[in-house]
Amino acid sequence: MKCAVINEVSARDKNPYLVQALAEKGHEVVNAGMREGEFAGEPLTYIHTGLMAATLLNLGAVDFVVGGCGTGQGFMLSAMQYPSVFCGLIETPLDAFLFGQINGGNCISLALNKGFGWAGDINLDYIFDKLFSDGFGEGYPEARKTSQQASRKILQTVSVQTHKTMIEIVSSLDRSITDTVFSYKPFADAVRGECTNKELQSFIINTYMGGAR
Amino acid sequence: MKCAVINEVSARDKNPYLVQALAEKGHEVVNAGMREGEFAGEPLTYIHTGLMAATLLNLGAVDFVVGGCGTGQGFMLSAMQYPSVFCGLIETPLDAFLFGQINGGNCISLALNKGFGWAGDINLDYIFDKLFSDGFGEGYPEARKTSQQASRKILQTVSVQTHKTMIEIVSSLDRSITDTVFSYKPFADAVRGECTNKELQSFIINTYMGGAR
Amino acid sequence: MKCAVINEVSARDKNPYLVQALAEKGHEVVNAGMREGEFAGEPLTYIHTGLMAATLLNLGAVDFVVGGCGTGQGFMLSAMQYPSVFCGLIETPLDAFLFGQINGGNCISLALNKGFGWAGDINLDYIFDKLFSDGFGEGYPEARKTSQQASRKILQTVSVQTHKTMIEIVSSLDRSITDTVFSYKPFADAVRGECTNKELQSFIINTYMGGAR
Amino acid sequence: MKCAVINEVSARDKNPYLVQALAEKGHEVVNAGMREGEFAGEPLTYIHTGLMAATLLNLGAVDFVVGGCGTGQGFMLSAMQYPSVFCGLIETPLDAFLFGQINGGNCISLALNKGFGWAGDINLDYIFDKLFSDGFGEGYPEARKTSQQASRKILQTVSVQTHKTMIEIVSSLDRSITDTVFSYKPFADAVRGECTNKELQSFIINTYMGGAR
Repeated sequence: MKCAVINEVSARDKNPYLVQALAEKGHEVVNAGMREGEFAGEPLTYIHTGLMAATLLNLGAVDFVVGGCGTGQGFMLSAMQYPSVFCGLIETPLDAFLFGQINGGNCISLALNKGFGWAGDINLDYIFDKLFSDGFGEGYPEARKTSQQASRKILQTVSVQTHKTMIEIVSSLDRSITDTVFSYKPFADAVRGECTNKELQSFIINTYMGGAR
Repeated sequence: MKCAVINEVSARDKNPYLVQALAEKGHEVVNAGMREGEFAGEPLTYIHTGLMAATLLNLGAVDFVVGGCGTGQGFMLSAMQYPSVFCGLIETPLDAFLFGQINGGNCISLALNKGFGWAGDINLDYIFDKLFSDGFGEGYPEARKTSQQASRKILQTVSVQTHKTMIEIVSSLDRSITDTVFSYKPFADAVRGECTNKELQSFIINTYMGGAR
Repeated sequence: MKCAVINEVSARDKNPYLVQALAEKGHEVVNAGMREGEFAGEPLTYIHTGLMAATLLNLGAVDFVVGGCGTGQGFMLSAMQYPSVFCGLIETPLDAFLFGQINGGNCISLALNKGFGWAGDINLDYIFDKLFSDGFGEGYPEARKTSQQASRKILQTVSVQTHKTMIEIVSSLDRSITDTVFSYKPFADAVRGECTNKELQSFIINTYMGGAR
Repeated sequence: MKCAVINEVSARDKNPYLVQALAEKGHEVVNAGMREGEFAGEPLTYIHTGLMAATLLNLGAVDFVVGGCGTGQGFMLSAMQYPSVFCGLIETPLDAFLFGQINGGNCISLALNKGFGWAGDINLDYIFDKLFSDGFGEGYPEARKTSQQASRKILQTVSVQTHKTMIEIVSSLDRSITDTVFSYKPFADAVRGECTNKELQSFIINTYMGGAR
């Protein structure tokens, strides 16, 4: 699977664990947010990383986004502002399994400071082991499968109905947010890469990135 | 505080714990979703309860919504489809404290089947003890307070910019969803009650509830 | 590995999950305590199951004991009264991994009512996956390995120095406890089976079980 | 309540949180183990801190001991080697409440590196809030109270029957352990203070501490 890892400033020191854990499981990793250590330029907050997650998913640039923040709530709240993003908050392997089975989302948010101590990296590894289990999106437990599958499909429709389009959204956001996001080198590279949503890609590249893909 | 409790079908047996814990802390409780025991009519899924939560918050009918589902992820994903809803996923008193301090949201989703065993009701009680602590929305830890307060305010603006208005949203949803939701007696009563957003209230009452307030 | 599963009365309904999870991983399971459903005779409390655990380990009848109770604390406290029992309290796969690496014990206690809800059985499965990982008893993290290995060996010596011998202990316990324990059929069968500590085995069989092996 | 706080080397940086949280709740704190920052002399491992806990409890020098280590398992395993020590492993306020109600022990072990991240100190504070709730030792839930109270009393008797006396135990331990423990200044001060078990106190002071109280 093609997975973006998107870290904001408060827990960027955990970025290597995320990248390594996903890579070891054979996923193609797009490390689009902040990295360990010092940073040049403006720090990314969850305001930025949430938009980044939504952009990559709506572009069809990646299949899945792994993000997080100190408690995981901020990135989740931010990413969930956008259409077609279904972001679970995951702390244990059991959370990962159940979110995969029941909600079958395309994004997770991790608590990377709260509760993150000895062997926190190993816990991340266990989480990724269970996230993409057999039966992704099929429901759990048995008796609730049909209802959950129906709800999951309805929610995808609702998400489109409640939100403006990504082009409308990006256009309406404060320019200081979009400028920070679309000039962030590793993210900008991902936007310029292979995407299925050519219309959104062209719009972003032409409007915010100087036009040259 | 005026709090709505909104349960969907899978964990409606936990409804009394939620109502009691909030009432004991002096909150005014609007028990708008499913209740313990058998139900007459259609079961509410998180598709319905998420819309209910968003409607009550956007109406200004309540200050806060407490919802949940089997794992908490479904209600959270559903409620977060709508504008001006900031719903944390809360499992421990520490989650409650940090969500209050950092995110200062207006909604929480609880895991009411996963991890809910002996003394699960007591854990809910502890959660509500810590949710509305002093310093709600002020940030944590000290060094990140200014940044978190700024992010919190930006997110409120973003939420309006990314979503259609509630009237547009309600109008575009499948009629089977809105009919179930707006005919659900305890919820309909809350919609007809005191609200600050008179325009949305009139629209809903006139369009879906036969017009008589 | 030859593992005993020993359930007391309060969570005997979880017994099938324990047996199945261990068996599926290729362990030989001795189901020595209570089982699901109705029981004939006296219920076993953690007073009994702790003695059972200690007896099987000191007999060399099994390599490892998996027990538990409502919160896991009672069985742990009871099993830990005896020599050469090193029982961890385990709730997550990460607990299991770290207990294996750092403490390398011979017994675990599980919380089988507290926090046991949807997919609790799956969590047990994940726990057993990680309990017997490579590096059992080697220490974690790297920097503390030497110290932890040393402590682990010292603790084994301390355990012998602080306790009476198992024969002295069993002899001094209230007869109502030993009668309940040694007449409990599935446990008695395990005592009569292959053991490395023939002296203790003979003593128990002769004193409490009518003498015939 | 008179509470000893006893930290070993791996998590001594968390010592101030424990001392402060207990003191703020009005407990008299005996800070008998390691403290934050650099240490003079030999580091204390859980081998030492477990003996310290058991000694203070058997001396009647304190009412309760709060200890811990990286995961909490090591201190618990070590303290539980001794008679009349009933040490729970506590990670959440709910654990604290249930351990107090059901097990009514005299010692807890905390995970001070695993899972200890943002606001870990606040979680400790919540734990102490709930540990000494009304109903300590009375049992939970209602239906199991009588059985649990009976088990709790039986366990106290069993603990005496399975262990040698503290004087026999201390005498048999390796001199390098007892020398480290009984020469550790803050602990030695506690041993020399008010105790109910004068016989054990005299023995320790005369044998290991140069005789002068």
